[in-house]
Amino acid sequence: MNFLEERILKDGIVKPGNVLKVDSFLNHQMDIGLMEEIGREFHRRFSDKQVTKVLTIEASGIGIACFVAREFGVPMVFAKKSKSINIEGDVYVAEVESFTHKNRNQVVVSKKFLSPEDHVLIIDDFLANGCALQGLISIVESAGATVEGLGIVIEKGFQMGGRVIRNLGYHLESLAIVDAMDPETESITFREQPVG
Amino acid sequence: MNFLEERILKDGIVKPGNVLKVDSFLNHQMDIGLMEEIGREFHRRFSDKQVTKVLTIEASGIGIACFVAREFGVPMVFAKKSKSINIEGDVYVAEVESFTHKNRNQVVVSKKFLSPEDHVLIIDDFLANGCALQGLISIVESAGATVEGLGIVIEKGFQMGGRVIRNLGYHLESLAIVDAMDPETESITFREQPVG
Repeated sequence: MNFLEERILKDGIVKPGNVLKVDSFLNHQMDIGLMEEIGREFHRRFSDKQVTKVLTIEASGIGIACFVAREFGVPMVFAKKSKSINIEGDVYVAEVESFTHKNRNQVVVSKKFLSPEDHVLIIDDFLANGCALQGLISIVESAGATVEGLGIVIEKGFQMGGRVIRNLGYHLESLAIVDAMDPETESITFREQPVG
Repeated sequence: MNFLEERILKDGIVKPGNVLKVDSFLNHQMDIGLMEEIGREFHRRFSDKQVTKVLTIEASGIGIACFVAREFGVPMVFAKKSKSINIEGDVYVAEVESFTHKNRNQVVVSKKFLSPEDHVLIIDDFLANGCALQGLISIVESAGATVEGLGIVIEKGFQMGGRVIRNLGYHLESLAIVDAMDPETESITFREQPVG
């Protein structure tokens, strides 16, 4: 079991409806030491890649992506969920459906910050049905840039998102893959992964 | 002139309507080295405070707040802008008006993450009319916790937010205070501040 799986077992809370609450350390309150460890782990897993930018989506991906970008020594860009008057018209756009909020958002990245020369590592906290990641992939492809890989903190292995993205041929690394959760027994089953 | 003012002059863009675009290094693409320097500077300016939590609001405050929290060795909590089904009912709520998006949001923080024992440093990227900061102050006070100070990256000194918060007696530090901007000449006038 890796450091993240241990932390999920210690502080994660399983709720009915396949909800895993990790808001005490990951996506509401953030344990900064854990963020740094996550940054180092993604750097290790993608150490063979020439990464020029880390891309994530607001909001809860930002903190994690910051520490990944720090390890690679590159800028971090976060996609914004609604068109702000402070973003210029020249943007890449993708439509993203939110599992959590049950709505659709336009996600935008300014064309200034992604170019065909960029090699992009996409980072996010959760992967379930994969809509957010597909939107980010679409934005990178629109820019003519290269998706070097995708790093996810927690993948819900019983939903389709991870399978779809791996089937498309992308290098996807999830630090923890939850294959099953039981709110009654509070048990979590992680998929076995090779230890690096 | 400090490191941030220099960077604003170098890469900030003045737009009509008192808009200062800093999206190439602060709130869309993030220069991680700059974020770390901002974290160290806030730690220096609030070094006499006993900070137990750093509080910000999604989305663009998160990256900055992470690096401030790292310097203090404490957790970071970010207020969420809409009630998510993943946040439990037990939350502190404030109403916040957005100058950028011209709408009102409910901002929530789970009661689990702020207690009367907490000494909170509030961090955000921009201060204009101060609605976001007032909402965060209100949330900290609701929790019975102590506001140790407020750290802002860029304050628009020609708007009321900073004056109101200082008048209320809070310790507010802004790394750059813009007193005037002229989109025609692309000039920016910073308020003189004591060098630490």
